[in-house]
Amino acid sequence: MPLENFYETYFPFWSVLADADKQLLCENTAEKHFDRSQPVHDNMGCTGLFIVRSGRLRLYMLSEDGKEITLYRLSPGDICMLSASCVLQSVTFDVYVDAEEESDCYHISAAAFGDVSNRYLEVKNYALETAVSRFSDVMWIMQQIVFMSMDKRLAIFLLEETRANGTDSVNMTHETIARHLGTAREVITRMLKHLAADGVIEVTRKGILIADKKKLRSIAY
Amino acid sequence: MPLENFYETYFPFWSVLADADKQLLCENTAEKHFDRSQPVHDNMGCTGLFIVRSGRLRLYMLSEDGKEITLYRLSPGDICMLSASCVLQSVTFDVYVDAEEESDCYHISAAAFGDVSNRYLEVKNYALETAVSRFSDVMWIMQQIVFMSMDKRLAIFLLEETRANGTDSVNMTHETIARHLGTAREVITRMLKHLAADGVIEVTRKGILIADKKKLRSIAY
Repeated sequence: MPLENFYETYFPFWSVLADADKQLLCENTAEKHFDRSQPVHDNMGCTGLFIVRSGRLRLYMLSEDGKEITLYRLSPGDICMLSASCVLQSVTFDVYVDAEEESDCYHISAAAFGDVSNRYLEVKNYALETAVSRFSDVMWIMQQIVFMSMDKRLAIFLLEETRANGTDSVNMTHETIARHLGTAREVITRMLKHLAADGVIEVTRKGILIADKKKLRSIAY
Repeated sequence: MPLENFYETYFPFWSVLADADKQLLCENTAEKHFDRSQPVHDNMGCTGLFIVRSGRLRLYMLSEDGKEITLYRLSPGDICMLSASCVLQSVTFDVYVDAEEESDCYHISAAAFGDVSNRYLEVKNYALETAVSRFSDVMWIMQQIVFMSMDKRLAIFLLEETRANGTDSVNMTHETIARHLGTAREVITRMLKHLAADGVIEVTRKGILIADKKKLRSIAY
């Protein structure tokens, strides 16, 4: 599909733009490919917007000593707005983005999008609305971190992973799961052992198989 | 000052409103007084907007078992937008608001503001922009919770409190400080003892006196 046709259905504001501005956004869009684990955006500067076409991006916070917390993931059709914080002047915190899987994205330059968003209230609105809707995701993560025990958080994580990948298994190392949840690998390994002993999961060489989803749900919610 | 004059300088979108809509907002504004600790908004429904005229409001999350985390405070001139989550459809999380001090506010009904914001992009923009700017405050709290040790968080809390109240002391019980930081009173009492032993603070009957601000800052940052 030509880019302009894609944007026409993708952006709710497209029809209000002048032809020159449609062209401006199209001309400042590039197709970008990211390998698995490749950085997409760090806290330096304003990288621009990314629309995920295939694969999956991960947004996270990073502490000075390298600790991470995954805030949310972007799937095909999602747009990454926080990597263009210069467009949203009211966003003053740093996030990092990397490709969790091999991913293809459209990249729109921050300058072009910022220019258009400064001239159309509809575009500014779209950018803010997108950012605010992610606010809710982040609050949910925060609520988990602050109020929930790690076993509850692990159960929620496993359920959300299987929901996202459409299978009954989570093929990640304990190290990776620990990084997502901002804890140590040993903590995750110990908890998974407990869950396996209770027959909730099976730990296989490839990863984790959910054996008793009902029981896992009762831990999570 | 008559309400309309206040709104004219307060709201950046005021001049674009039709006279009937200006009137609508003014007619749906009420002066509300809150006693210290009085609830302003809970997670039930859409309470409306509050503009703080005097005093201080506190926004917080609440867990099922009554644990709290203070997200941010609203001082005179600030507006509370998250208590009108029905205006911002993309906000799907619950916050609680109470008066931290005796406070006077203007209250605007959610229905009236929502109606106007649906008809003026400028108003919708203002509401979203306000919400997004608070997103940054929340991320800062989250960063502290996830990445910082409790002694660092306590130091930051004491410094921010003295900055907010313009003195060198924090007149709160250990219980109250613990509630703000989402921990147990015992943890705070133990840490304050350590800080007192190091000469950083003095624990008096009225509260906590910062004795060595430089040292406290070196713990915090």
